[in-house]
Amino acid sequence: MNMPVKKLPLLDGLLAPSDLRRLNETELDELAEEIRYRIRETVSRTGGHLASNLGVVELTMALHRVYDFKTDRLLWDVGHQAYVHKLLTGRAENFATNRQKGGISGFPDPNESEYDFAKVGHSSTAISTGVGVAEAFRRLGQKRKTVAVVGDGALTGGMCFEGLINAGELKSDLLVILNDNGNFIDEPVGALHTYLDRIRTGNFYKHVRERLSGILKKLPFGREVERVTEHVEQVAHKLVSPGYIFEDLGIRYFGPIDGHNRTEVEEMLHRLDDVHEPVLLHVLTRKGDGWGPSQEDPLTFHGPKGFDVDTGVFPPKGKVIGKTWSDVFADVMLELAEEDERLVTVTAAMPSGTALRVFAQQYPDRMYDVGICEQHSFAFVEGMAIAGLRPVLAHYSTFAQRGYDQLFQELVLQRNLGVIVALDRAGLVGEDGETHQGVYDISWSRCFPGIVIMAPKDAAELRALLHWAHQDRQQTEDETAAYIVRYPKEVVPDYTWGLTKPQAIEVGKAELVCKGTGRLMVWAYGAMFRLAWEAMEVLTEQEREQITMVNPRFAKPFDDHMLKELATDHDCVLTIEDHALAGGFGSIVLESASAQGLALSVDRLGVQDDLVEHASRLEQLEDHGLSVSHIVERMRLVLGVVEESADSQPIPFRRAD
Amino acid sequence: MNMPVKKLPLLDGLLAPSDLRRLNETELDELAEEIRYRIRETVSRTGGHLASNLGVVELTMALHRVYDFKTDRLLWDVGHQAYVHKLLTGRAENFATNRQKGGISGFPDPNESEYDFAKVGHSSTAISTGVGVAEAFRRLGQKRKTVAVVGDGALTGGMCFEGLINAGELKSDLLVILNDNGNFIDEPVGALHTYLDRIRTGNFYKHVRERLSGILKKLPFGREVERVTEHVEQVAHKLVSPGYIFEDLGIRYFGPIDGHNRTEVEEMLHRLDDVHEPVLLHVLTRKGDGWGPSQEDPLTFHGPKGFDVDTGVFPPKGKVIGKTWSDVFADVMLELAEEDERLVTVTAAMPSGTALRVFAQQYPDRMYDVGICEQHSFAFVEGMAIAGLRPVLAHYSTFAQRGYDQLFQELVLQRNLGVIVALDRAGLVGEDGETHQGVYDISWSRCFPGIVIMAPKDAAELRALLHWAHQDRQQTEDETAAYIVRYPKEVVPDYTWGLTKPQAIEVGKAELVCKGTGRLMVWAYGAMFRLAWEAMEVLTEQEREQITMVNPRFAKPFDDHMLKELATDHDCVLTIEDHALAGGFGSIVLESASAQGLALSVDRLGVQDDLVEHASRLEQLEDHGLSVSHIVERMRLVLGVVEESADSQPIPFRRAD
Repeated sequence: MNMPVKKLPLLDGLLAPSDLRRLNETELDELAEEIRYRIRETVSRTGGHLASNLGVVELTMALHRVYDFKTDRLLWDVGHQAYVHKLLTGRAENFATNRQKGGISGFPDPNESEYDFAKVGHSSTAISTGVGVAEAFRRLGQKRKTVAVVGDGALTGGMCFEGLINAGELKSDLLVILNDNGNFIDEPVGALHTYLDRIRTGNFYKHVRERLSGILKKLPFGREVERVTEHVEQVAHKLVSPGYIFEDLGIRYFGPIDGHNRTEVEEMLHRLDDVHEPVLLHVLTRKGDGWGPSQEDPLTFHGPKGFDVDTGVFPPKGKVIGKTWSDVFADVMLELAEEDERLVTVTAAMPSGTALRVFAQQYPDRMYDVGICEQHSFAFVEGMAIAGLRPVLAHYSTFAQRGYDQLFQELVLQRNLGVIVALDRAGLVGEDGETHQGVYDISWSRCFPGIVIMAPKDAAELRALLHWAHQDRQQTEDETAAYIVRYPKEVVPDYTWGLTKPQAIEVGKAELVCKGTGRLMVWAYGAMFRLAWEAMEVLTEQEREQITMVNPRFAKPFDDHMLKELATDHDCVLTIEDHALAGGFGSIVLESASAQGLALSVDRLGVQDDLVEHASRLEQLEDHGLSVSHIVERMRLVLGVVEESADSQPIPFRRAD
Repeated sequence: MNMPVKKLPLLDGLLAPSDLRRLNETELDELAEEIRYRIRETVSRTGGHLASNLGVVELTMALHRVYDFKTDRLLWDVGHQAYVHKLLTGRAENFATNRQKGGISGFPDPNESEYDFAKVGHSSTAISTGVGVAEAFRRLGQKRKTVAVVGDGALTGGMCFEGLINAGELKSDLLVILNDNGNFIDEPVGALHTYLDRIRTGNFYKHVRERLSGILKKLPFGREVERVTEHVEQVAHKLVSPGYIFEDLGIRYFGPIDGHNRTEVEEMLHRLDDVHEPVLLHVLTRKGDGWGPSQEDPLTFHGPKGFDVDTGVFPPKGKVIGKTWSDVFADVMLELAEEDERLVTVTAAMPSGTALRVFAQQYPDRMYDVGICEQHSFAFVEGMAIAGLRPVLAHYSTFAQRGYDQLFQELVLQRNLGVIVALDRAGLVGEDGETHQGVYDISWSRCFPGIVIMAPKDAAELRALLHWAHQDRQQTEDETAAYIVRYPKEVVPDYTWGLTKPQAIEVGKAELVCKGTGRLMVWAYGAMFRLAWEAMEVLTEQEREQITMVNPRFAKPFDDHMLKELATDHDCVLTIEDHALAGGFGSIVLESASAQGLALSVDRLGVQDDLVEHASRLEQLEDHGLSVSHIVERMRLVLGVVEESADSQPIPFRRAD
């Protein structure tokens, strides 16, 4: 936590955002430099979002100079671009702890500062929240300004339109700042981008004029045509505001203005001071601005780590530490694409994160990035699947929640579409913290019928499960709506676990990895199998040989049969999952034991009923009792208890029928 | 099922939609009359959607005359307006079975007809699905048209914009028909409505001209001003298409045209035949068209039942059958609003269904209908709550799924907002069928920390729980993110269950209603308590006095303490819920018993792992083993089993620690 950071006189001397108003122009320029340096320095050490934050330095300074966000309210959409805001609101000194355990969060957090409005991390919600805030202030008779900063990528999320439409209806006193850097998290996509781009590049009026000339030539003005054209062109740009899409939803449009010209931004904000209705201010910024390396390559510097703070050079890669689960997923997609022309892949703004960028390099027209539109993504693959393609949808577990009802209606209700849904970043996700944890997906998916839920223990099994699912989806008598495969954000184990040959994949069948002599069986789900295995290696030979190890593979359908078989000579089950205990994998084991009337005592390790704060994945596993040493301890306790009560006759869970 | 229906020669003589092309104009007009009659006749008997279907008679006929939806594809958004389509595609004769058990569904269903593309029931998804279909056809080299029909109400859902943006990007060969009846399910809301309305009423160009005149007057044209004005006005309507919002997203706009002029619609569809890019055709229709009563009052005839098929007169109300759960909810909102100025209510297009219309009659400015924008609704109440109001959000259980990630980020992550979320239509919903069942909400909400989940057994308890939650949310030390109250679509019991005084509400505390002498305890959740009680009344005196009855009230936090207490002299639990068994209330009881090492055998009654088809709520309860007679049978079985093995010593679920 106590990393040496370069002392920056202006930034470290700020006591409150209001101090910004006391600085002169030269000092403000220097401060901007200092801010950029501090962010670079921290991100190079701890990782995090760089380019997006460098793009909003002047904009953020202007906002804090014009408004007082102790009374006014500032909402950052997504929130990954709030570093500058954090530095200006009392968090410059401990910014080096960004995203570290016990340190500050990489996203806004009201527990850190009264200047942070709400916890965020998912996209496209700030306008809606802002409409609520503005409406509350109106009702309560409080004169406060509400400002929401939304990126052009986030604006593709349909929820933004829902918010804008409601703002127009309620005539909310809300200032929406469209932070348009012509870029998305990944590559820009979508027709909205084309529209905004036309404004950005100044081609908007050229476009209007061309359209106009075409029209005028067709009209019967005779010799007057030239004069008419001249007149019409003169007023055309007054007649058609480039922001008319917003204007006709009841939102006044201003801009575009240069977001790196702080003075221009401040003047505009002052001009808007008396406008108490919904306004969209279009601000043009450059991702990675103010530092050569990130300016030239904002994608590399979107979420970098370990680069040289001055030159932006990354150290040469050392020993390859191995592929991630995402890498293997993308590899398998390439294999499947080669053997099946109908296979296409779909992601929502996460081609890099899901590794589908690799797939797209080989099959550029078979990878669809639909933007930050998770709802759309599920219906899009539904349509494709019904019409004869074989789509694979890849989401982060936490973002898949954004298309939950579409998973239900567009996939589950159709019963047999067999869409493969890869949930990357399932489980504890590390530094991104509370907003990004993928620890709920088993609970929210298993209540729906027709869903197969799988998690592999290693690279070979991920490959095998995906190949199996792709085969299985082609069985027309099958009623599987979706095959969900979940895996975490980490390097994937490539190991054989003492198995001469892994058991072939069969739906709903678990894999018995080793049979012990004692009465404890361990069902460790997916990536947790590795930790359970490592725990076994810590045990003594004598302890180890008592334990039966099961790799469940399927959470749904669950292998009731194997549980029943093993229950004949085991009476304790230890379940291990990096998922919420409430309704998770262990809960499935309880349901199975109960329904079958099995004589089993079930002990469940998993994520307790609380939010999971940012820290490394290893630290989070440790904090939630899921580390190797915790598992060892628990195994030993259970073994002890089993021996203690070995004489007693367990009585089954009884079913009344 | 065999209701006598009036024979309609043209309609009943149709063998396939292609037959429509053989009819002459007079016959087509007669057919339209027959269609309207058949729909009225059926809806008057069985309930269902009337006005929206009467509004699309000519449009649907035109679509089936121009396209062949055996090869082309027709997608109905929401799907409640697909009755005409059903009549024209082989379901005229058994249309009288609409929404009845074993009969046809009130929504599209591919199992009924190859002309139905997918099961739908939730709004705003058809464009996205259509983009997927069109893209699949393009990839597969199949020349087929994809048509999506979307209402103006559905268009407010942000997902439509996600779909349109993607259609623009992919240049999809997709025809979107905007079925604009200037109406929503309930009242029209939102700025988009204002925009569409301006087009509908012909005021669009007036608006443009007025804006223009204002601008021209400010320009330095001197004496030329009149001539300039004239020139500009002449071309203004060529310059600005009324559909430019769509055009600039890459969608070609056509219309508006009269949707009741079948010939005009057909001509337009033919004209569009060679356009192989995304098109939005704006069709103006009238809800309830072609029949006096529904034309005059489309809201009453949105989902009516029991009216006279000729006159539209409803029979005089007989004995009042009692209030529904929704009615009581609205009553309590009125009480709370009177005592607390900060209370406001929010719904997403369901003021009638949730009974908040009653609330709005008294407090018109304190009820917010945000349109079909569930995602927005959660963020909207978040903003309101943080800024100092005390919002109550009312959704149907199934539609709340559409804001799932916003429940997570906008409420759960903020930890202490204490928003009350009423889930109406929770449980088995009856005739609306698979798409509308509210049997998943316990599973998807209980995995999130900080959520309180409640269900009352009767009217007084619903009132008490809401009052309690409203008090409790004002405790600042509290960390409750949301108070979820779930209740079904039915008349609410107003009964005292032999209790002299109900136990006061306390968070996480169950109510012990009667203590039996035997070893069976019944935990019947929410509305299921009534059925369990009725089952008790069927039992013999001797059987009855053995059984302990618990009213759980809270699914989360669950009353572990009472379960443990009762476990000392009970060894069987019967849980009853109208919710999916996977991860539902019974699963919570299992988790509690296991965690506490209780000696309990748990028997769970609930909805099995399959979709629930349309039928009456009573029939669905019967089909899923949740009827009174099923409960009686199960109680008797358990009592019998308990006696059978009364000598054996049950051994607890054991915990290793």
